[in-house]
Amino acid sequence: MAVKPDHDNIEFKTSTSHELANLYGLTPKVVAAVIACIADGNKDRLVSLVAPLHPADQADMIERLNSAQLKRFTLMMRENLDPTVLTYLPDTVLEDVVSSYGVNELAQALPELDSDDAIDILEDLEDEEVADILAALPVGERLIVEEALSYPEHCAGRLMQREVVVCPSHWTVGQSIDHLRAEDADQLPDEFYVIIIIDPARRVLGQVRLAKLLSSDRPVRLSDIMEIAPHQIPVSMDKEEVGLLFQRYGLVSVSVVDAQEKLVGMITVDDIVDVIQEEAGEDLMALGGVSDSDLRSSLAATVQSRFLWLLVNLFTAVIASLVIGVFDETIERLVALAVLMPIVASMGGNAGTQTVTVAVRALAMRQLTDARIVNRFVLREAMVGLTNGLIFAVVAGVVTLIWFQNIQIALVIGFAMIANMLAAALSGAGIPIILSKMKIDPAVASSVFITTVTDVIGFLTFLGLAAIYLV
Amino acid sequence: MAVKPDHDNIEFKTSTSHELANLYGLTPKVVAAVIACIADGNKDRLVSLVAPLHPADQADMIERLNSAQLKRFTLMMRENLDPTVLTYLPDTVLEDVVSSYGVNELAQALPELDSDDAIDILEDLEDEEVADILAALPVGERLIVEEALSYPEHCAGRLMQREVVVCPSHWTVGQSIDHLRAEDADQLPDEFYVIIIIDPARRVLGQVRLAKLLSSDRPVRLSDIMEIAPHQIPVSMDKEEVGLLFQRYGLVSVSVVDAQEKLVGMITVDDIVDVIQEEAGEDLMALGGVSDSDLRSSLAATVQSRFLWLLVNLFTAVIASLVIGVFDETIERLVALAVLMPIVASMGGNAGTQTVTVAVRALAMRQLTDARIVNRFVLREAMVGLTNGLIFAVVAGVVTLIWFQNIQIALVIGFAMIANMLAAALSGAGIPIILSKMKIDPAVASSVFITTVTDVIGFLTFLGLAAIYLV
Repeated sequence: MAVKPDHDNIEFKTSTSHELANLYGLTPKVVAAVIACIADGNKDRLVSLVAPLHPADQADMIERLNSAQLKRFTLMMRENLDPTVLTYLPDTVLEDVVSSYGVNELAQALPELDSDDAIDILEDLEDEEVADILAALPVGERLIVEEALSYPEHCAGRLMQREVVVCPSHWTVGQSIDHLRAEDADQLPDEFYVIIIIDPARRVLGQVRLAKLLSSDRPVRLSDIMEIAPHQIPVSMDKEEVGLLFQRYGLVSVSVVDAQEKLVGMITVDDIVDVIQEEAGEDLMALGGVSDSDLRSSLAATVQSRFLWLLVNLFTAVIASLVIGVFDETIERLVALAVLMPIVASMGGNAGTQTVTVAVRALAMRQLTDARIVNRFVLREAMVGLTNGLIFAVVAGVVTLIWFQNIQIALVIGFAMIANMLAAALSGAGIPIILSKMKIDPAVASSVFITTVTDVIGFLTFLGLAAIYLV
Repeated sequence: MAVKPDHDNIEFKTSTSHELANLYGLTPKVVAAVIACIADGNKDRLVSLVAPLHPADQADMIERLNSAQLKRFTLMMRENLDPTVLTYLPDTVLEDVVSSYGVNELAQALPELDSDDAIDILEDLEDEEVADILAALPVGERLIVEEALSYPEHCAGRLMQREVVVCPSHWTVGQSIDHLRAEDADQLPDEFYVIIIIDPARRVLGQVRLAKLLSSDRPVRLSDIMEIAPHQIPVSMDKEEVGLLFQRYGLVSVSVVDAQEKLVGMITVDDIVDVIQEEAGEDLMALGGVSDSDLRSSLAATVQSRFLWLLVNLFTAVIASLVIGVFDETIERLVALAVLMPIVASMGGNAGTQTVTVAVRALAMRQLTDARIVNRFVLREAMVGLTNGLIFAVVAGVVTLIWFQNIQIALVIGFAMIANMLAAALSGAGIPIILSKMKIDPAVASSVFITTVTDVIGFLTFLGLAAIYLV
């Protein structure tokens, strides 16, 4: 049996082992050559350059093209474009490729992919396009895809592949290997790490890892070497939860079951790598006040998505200004207060951000699960805030004393600093936890609240104390 | 051949399939029961409660104990504690467990683990402890561990496991399966997904996935079904790069080779899940100005690690105050300026943070690789900054006009807003890219620079324009 000459093969035939350093197939030279081919309309050379690349590199190449180049590229590549490449493209680019590739051609290519990859492509497209593609799919394929798309977007049902290898538990190692050998290669999943053992009602009994199967003797029964599946997950489970489960238990492959506990598919660790990366990235972006991680989304879309966050921030900044406005006469009499007041607010804001970051991360990792741990966390953050508050009260006080030669202002800034750093710690720890209890994503919403709290408390304590004791 | 009664098995025998919802073995009930056993000194019941749990759950249980409970726990569990549990513990807790578990006992347990897990434990310990454990290890094991520890901390050599399955390319499928069956189960890696094909000099020729091996007929030669290994990575490659490679190409298992291109080990995707999670988490924490992600690190350590960041921020806040100080007479004459000035600075700071977040994330994902993409990114951010600057110039201007009934102040805040949002975009995009070129982690260092820029530009333009045109 000869191996199918897939991209990996071709790729590495061209790159010898002493080119170890060059692990990425897409070098600047290749990029330049591809762009030249597109410009020249040299189709044969284009195919010979692109086809040997790994699908991920082909996708990367596509991303680098402008829209005119992209159109020519898809026209020239057409039947030579591996549908797997589409799974590596970000939404916006995928749209462009699909529209010039054509719905019918895509419908023909989709059945070549494992169902999770096909779904991955379809869920990034517009509803109309999906409807057109579904209509063009063979009936069997269409039913599978439609069922998958019927699951909510962030659940295990979307992530899983329907292609699995199952055996009854009374089979022997030999029987199951013979079964695999007899099976048409197209019928097997592209990749699998376990054989799933099911009962006649298609309920999961356990799984046998391939390494175990291979190292066991032919007469051994599967029931004797199977691991009683520790984690079968419901098809409705949230992707993020699935990711955490894989991570926590170092899983490689889990069975997915429906509400009747029947096997409907499996999720493997290589699918989870992307989920984990995405989830962690989403938290990062959310804390930074951005929602799109895509460098390719349109200018208008980017402006719009950032605008909302900035508008909310303007609102909180105005609240802070209103607080300052209350003390305008105080400031008029002692302008040093205007000079110093941003220090208190800014230190509180930074301390609050530190605590929020730790809290958001801990919540995402499900580390703040029980009440005892939560209390310990809040108390600890309060202690850290108070300690740093005391230290910076002294530092800021000394700086102020040297600068303005006024011990009273120094005392006021010191007390305001302690109050604000403590408020920052308490709100920084408390707000994400409360939001999370209210089922609001703490990564998205926390920062605004914290900044509002630290600005208001900062200006209020500093200017308020000054109004009472100084002027 | 009977399956080793491992934890997964026992665990699931106790939980029937209709308890699907309860995917985590460590329920509050179990936690309470374990703590009660520790208090009562009921050793047998403790073992019967803890041993059936997955090692990850056992580690989670250990993390919940206070130090007195932990001491009693290790004493009572002793020989029943699976060394795998140690790999799931965070540094600080691991230290405690090891010190009460004892160096000799640990040295005896380590050889049971795959080498990557053993290294994982050792690299979290103090040098002295490591030396003691090494001294107590059997010679063969010691050499392996010492070699692994000789690699720099963040490189592939630390991540890989030395246990691999290798075959020559002229072997048949049947021969290699027979070889695996004949092999002592202890000699095989705990988990593997490919057989690595090597030449007599131990250079990697390719790999055969187990799924492929199983579905091929016995007489087929490995050379006919092997994939010419697309990615063999040097032992010195950075962990983060390894993670990106796995992610980009959807890899499952790669061979690791030394400087002579000889096979020294392999890295599998399940090890990479943690790397990806950690790296993404590190960027998140760094952007938030925190360096420790551990909820268990000591109060003093936390205060210290946060202090440095806050000190740097105090410095930048003082710089901003110095800028305000230049205009104290202007403020004295028109106190509305003091009320409004934080708005300009805060909006710039937020817009800058948005851009920095996108830049840091894109840099971490290696999306800003060539000059063309970088230029496009900076230009795009500048356009976004300018557009939002124009919008918020109008919004802030209108708010100011309503509030202070003064068109001149409204115009000044508008122009200052445009200037600061543009400065925020340019510095937010440029600073991380420049830092990254200088080999400084942009996630750690960018925020401080950005805040300084937006505070200084914000106060300078607003108060400066006011000084020139208003008073």
